Amino acid sequence: MAFHSSRRLVICSLMSTALAATAFGDEGMWLFNNPPLQQFKEKYQFEPTPQWLDHLQKSSVRFNSGGSGSFVSADGLVITNHHVGLDTLQKISSEKNNYVRDGFYAKSRAEEPKATDLELNVLMSIEDVTERVNAGVQPGLSGEEASKARGNVIAQIEKESKDKTGLRSDVVTLYQGGVYNLYRYKRYDDVRLVFAPEEQIAFYGGDPDNFEYPRFDLDICIFRAYENGQPAKIEHFLKWNTTGPADGELTFVSGHPGRTDRQLTVSELAEARDVEVPYLLSMYNRREVLLGAFGARSFENARRVQQDRRGVENNRKRYDGYLAALLDPEVWSAIDQREQRLRDAMNSKPEFKGMIAAYDRIKQAQADTAKVLPVYHYFETNRGRAGATYRAPRAFYSNLFKYARRLLRAGEERAKPNGERFPEYRDSNRESLELDFFSTEPVHPDVEQVTLADSLTDMATAFGFEDPLVRQVLAGKSPADRAAELVTGTKLGDPAFRRQLYSGDPPAIASANDPMLELARLVDAPARAARKTFEAQDETKQQAYAEIAKARFAIEGTSSYPDATFTLRLSYGPVLGYEENGKQIAPLTTFAGLYQRAAEHNNQPPFDLPKRWIERKGKLNMSTPFNFVSTADIIGGNSGSPVTNKANEFVGIIFDGNIQSLVLDCIYAEKQARAVSVDSAAISEALRKIYDAGALADEIEGKTAQR
Amino acid sequence: MAFHSSRRLVICSLMSTALAATAFGDEGMWLFNNPPLQQFKEKYQFEPTPQWLDHLQKSSVRFNSGGSGSFVSADGLVITNHHVGLDTLQKISSEKNNYVRDGFYAKSRAEEPKATDLELNVLMSIEDVTERVNAGVQPGLSGEEASKARGNVIAQIEKESKDKTGLRSDVVTLYQGGVYNLYRYKRYDDVRLVFAPEEQIAFYGGDPDNFEYPRFDLDICIFRAYENGQPAKIEHFLKWNTTGPADGELTFVSGHPGRTDRQLTVSELAEARDVEVPYLLSMYNRREVLLGAFGARSFENARRVQQDRRGVENNRKRYDGYLAALLDPEVWSAIDQREQRLRDAMNSKPEFKGMIAAYDRIKQAQADTAKVLPVYHYFETNRGRAGATYRAPRAFYSNLFKYARRLLRAGEERAKPNGERFPEYRDSNRESLELDFFSTEPVHPDVEQVTLADSLTDMATAFGFEDPLVRQVLAGKSPADRAAELVTGTKLGDPAFRRQLYSGDPPAIASANDPMLELARLVDAPARAARKTFEAQDETKQQAYAEIAKARFAIEGTSSYPDATFTLRLSYGPVLGYEENGKQIAPLTTFAGLYQRAAEHNNQPPFDLPKRWIERKGKLNMSTPFNFVSTADIIGGNSGSPVTNKANEFVGIIFDGNIQSLVLDCIYAEKQARAVSVDSAAISEALRKIYDAGALADEIEGKTAQR
Repeated sequence: MAFHSSRRLVICSLMSTALAATAFGDEGMWLFNNPPLQQFKEKYQFEPTPQWLDHLQKSSVRFNSGGSGSFVSADGLVITNHHVGLDTLQKISSEKNNYVRDGFYAKSRAEEPKATDLELNVLMSIEDVTERVNAGVQPGLSGEEASKARGNVIAQIEKESKDKTGLRSDVVTLYQGGVYNLYRYKRYDDVRLVFAPEEQIAFYGGDPDNFEYPRFDLDICIFRAYENGQPAKIEHFLKWNTTGPADGELTFVSGHPGRTDRQLTVSELAEARDVEVPYLLSMYNRREVLLGAFGARSFENARRVQQDRRGVENNRKRYDGYLAALLDPEVWSAIDQREQRLRDAMNSKPEFKGMIAAYDRIKQAQADTAKVLPVYHYFETNRGRAGATYRAPRAFYSNLFKYARRLLRAGEERAKPNGERFPEYRDSNRESLELDFFSTEPVHPDVEQVTLADSLTDMATAFGFEDPLVRQVLAGKSPADRAAELVTGTKLGDPAFRRQLYSGDPPAIASANDPMLELARLVDAPARAARKTFEAQDETKQQAYAEIAKARFAIEGTSSYPDATFTLRLSYGPVLGYEENGKQIAPLTTFAGLYQRAAEHNNQPPFDLPKRWIERKGKLNMSTPFNFVSTADIIGGNSGSPVTNKANEFVGIIFDGNIQSLVLDCIYAEKQARAVSVDSAAISEALRKIYDAGALADEIEGKTAQR
Repeated sequence: MAFHSSRRLVICSLMSTALAATAFGDEGMWLFNNPPLQQFKEKYQFEPTPQWLDHLQKSSVRFNSGGSGSFVSADGLVITNHHVGLDTLQKISSEKNNYVRDGFYAKSRAEEPKATDLELNVLMSIEDVTERVNAGVQPGLSGEEASKARGNVIAQIEKESKDKTGLRSDVVTLYQGGVYNLYRYKRYDDVRLVFAPEEQIAFYGGDPDNFEYPRFDLDICIFRAYENGQPAKIEHFLKWNTTGPADGELTFVSGHPGRTDRQLTVSELAEARDVEVPYLLSMYNRREVLLGAFGARSFENARRVQQDRRGVENNRKRYDGYLAALLDPEVWSAIDQREQRLRDAMNSKPEFKGMIAAYDRIKQAQADTAKVLPVYHYFETNRGRAGATYRAPRAFYSNLFKYARRLLRAGEERAKPNGERFPEYRDSNRESLELDFFSTEPVHPDVEQVTLADSLTDMATAFGFEDPLVRQVLAGKSPADRAAELVTGTKLGDPAFRRQLYSGDPPAIASANDPMLELARLVDAPARAARKTFEAQDETKQQAYAEIAKARFAIEGTSSYPDATFTLRLSYGPVLGYEENGKQIAPLTTFAGLYQRAAEHNNQPPFDLPKRWIERKGKLNMSTPFNFVSTADIIGGNSGSPVTNKANEFVGIIFDGNIQSLVLDCIYAEKQARAVSVDSAAISEALRKIYDAGALADEIEGKTAQR
């Protein structure tokens, strides 16, 4: 778990405590068009060819639900984490067929069930469009005008590229606005489930072991990409290594870290520490309690909220760790010093001295943004991440509201010129949006009522019961009664109804007379107003950060890496143990360790073993390496990233970081921070001995082309 | 669970929606010196004798840890709820002897283990001291001076009474300051455990079933009071009825409702709704998550935080329900109308017109209090309830801090004249304070570190990392490091060390050089300052409420009951079912229903049965009534209250209210709100058939004087 996606807000960073242009240790989430060749060579005497890089890039897969993966067969097999696949497992399960709890294995291709709304992306090319984007924004514009102008030129570039190549085309902001790149992706939206283990072994040890090490998790899930109803023919896929990496062996990680903000200013990080992260934790705490209490009522209740609960618990533990890092005076002093040194350097050079004012502009933009933040968070967005699935705003913890807003906004936005729309409604994103909107995932009215009633209560206490907008939203009812009225009254749970309204004209939507749609309409104006302010201030920040970045490039050199943005990055580092509380932690665990841990806890949850693992214990080679740690610099979104060796072979799959890695959001720390992976050897062994999935093992090991 | 004690803040009330002097339905938590004789006679043709009332009063027991109980044998047997006894069960358990999980039965008196710090009180007399208290407060004093003067005269009355009678003597504020009564209690502080069932049957159904009905809980715990090392000889104890009450039978409840504020102003209730209850819920949510995550790591972790976790979950569900009531426009409109009618009545009478200003004075006092509330809550008090155990303030979620503050303050306060001390350090409370301070309850450093680190984090985010007081408290360390330093450095976990310092002079405390004691000293001045302001404003409120009360008495007559104050009250009402979602809920459940519920949930937690209950199913009479509901008006603190019939026999024991009763804090609602009890018949049957405790059953049933 742990490193899945990212409803993550502000994070931070720091290149060690120094401003060194060269990264510290095995630091860095590097661009594939600017890989750390010097570090590879100097520290590891490794010189990859362009073909090596190209092959790894094109074997890497982005899960748009928020995670990473890789192709591992010519016939479209994609391996990712169980917790990345969990979203799909939950959506295609029912009370009768509980794939989350029981796992799944398709013995033949005909038995591979289709995901309801899963989109995979493979990065095909990168093009620098910085000049064109900046040329589209005249100097001297207000924040709002500049934001609009930038949106326009980006939309134009994306649309041209999409029309020309047919590929998904995203303009990506790097170095906080210093660089704009056009990324072109091959999309796969017919994705089918091949294999998943039981959640109990995928997430063995549950919340207590999440973000901890030593670890014993088979956190994998295997899908197959299809094209035109047939398994996709894949040119670039990773060769499987059945033995896994050795202690000390150099490994590489190719994946999609969701977001770091290692270059945020001190004032933005202070806001993260004192306001934003506590705000998020208050939300996760309340949701964890809510979903826990709901789930405890029956097995079916628990099943219905399982994925959501897991996500919430994961975020809670992650942000707890991040907050602890921000409240650590040593970390904070390093953050402080880092900015001070850059400021000093800028002050000492006449050509950059004027740019110091950029820091104040960011601070002012923070203050201006703060005024609209409550409305922005509660009514406009729950801060979905670039590329990740849109989530309903905090006041409306409801999939039905999500659909209502989508429908309403699609009507409003499609009527505008492409460049003036919100990015999510631009032509270049239309296929992805519709995949999600027409999803056949089940909507559970009981869950919807409970979560919506809770978020309406949350809203009422955040703004006060007498607040005019609160009164309008509640419409003279209690939160529970209002939630019941909305959920039982709306027809938006039916995909056919959504499709019908979506395909009609805006007037059809206006006359639909659906209560959830009316609610979305009711809050649309204040929500849009808050977003407008937010985005204008964000543009102001972006321009200021671009100035700071320019100074930094000039002072430090450009051979560095930008903050993570859920785009493909290359990290690296050897398999390496560490010391914790005076004790040496070995880098690799084994199956034997798994059984030992279960025995120590009397096989009680969350340390219990699935039935199959108890029954087939005798068949397993107990010394098979199970999980391992390496020094690679990773973060949320890297979940499911392939771990490869110098020969570009698949030797493992990232699924977590240890508790000491939670500081990586704001500082790279090689001493204890570790990336945690499942060993490829364990996957082969488990598929064959536990799951009778020899045919699948043969396919990923390249022993047969066809199962 | 559910109705245990009360870290409860502001609650509210409303005598139906009308200002009628006679209570609505079976409303009321009546004083024993002003019982609802008229209602008894008119509605139920029942006329109890003074002896009947005296017997019930003196058979009733207050658990100072926060709950109620009653004597049920001549040899000192006291029955209460399992969740009231849980505090003691937790404190006398260990990893090896887990009385919470496994239950306990002392086969002989020699085997009855002594509680670490349990104090029982029996109300012996009530005396009106209103005139003397008010005479001690000269008109025209400032809030601070008046608060001091009132404290002085109250301390004097209490000390005189204690010196004269030897009884615990508390001056009790009734009608929000309209009346002051002197309550004299017989204390028992040698209390021993006789019987407890397994938590799994005492709290069957766990959090999902808490505050719900139908119900199947054996929520009982039996202690024995001792005097001079021998079982106490009890004159007033309740005769046991082995068949329980019939459907429709009138019953009485004699217990200690913790607190209602049914006479709070609308402005105070709005503060409760928008500020205080959300504030409390944010604390309970974060603690529920914290303790849940800690407990999931191992059985022993779970055991160590079990009682605390239960209490937190209970409060979270309770406040969720209370907030839902406050956010219900129907409830709110009734609250509004109630105040408006009283204001109208006051306006229409010249002699009360001037008193309307009291509402504004309360509002002003709220505003003045609000300025110090964060410091007051985080550094001075977690708002312990009158009579309930003191709890550490929110910033220091730690028993060790509690001891440190006690020690520091005891030294400071004892040096002052008795009347000028904080109430908890007055001579009249000395025995109770020392019982708690010298408790041998275990202190678990691992738990302390986790809870203290979390509350320090909470504090840092509430005030901001740069706040001067926060910086002083953290002393340049992260919350986790600071907590570790404090917990490992202090010696206050050792009762002998506490006793030694406590018995020494203040200089001994000053030179103790204990880090936790130093922390208590560090925050003492700001904490005291906040409390001073809080109490001065509280005095202002009390005077204003006293004026409103005077007007209300004159307009409505005085035949009403005051808000609950954790003092003895009499409630009543018949055993009666109710309708919920169109379905009729029968008032009584049976053992058969318990087994059916377990079967429906595959005997999985929290619906699993203890081993004994599975093995001995065949011995039980399945039609034995198990739990029942009545219309009695109860609230937190009533847990463990005896339920009696007209013959003054014990027919059951209160342990909960249903979910519809959570509104009772602010409105009496007979339609659906119900008090939930264990049937006396089930207790007899279970003791004999499940627990082989025939001797104990004989004693409570009066069949033997001596086991």
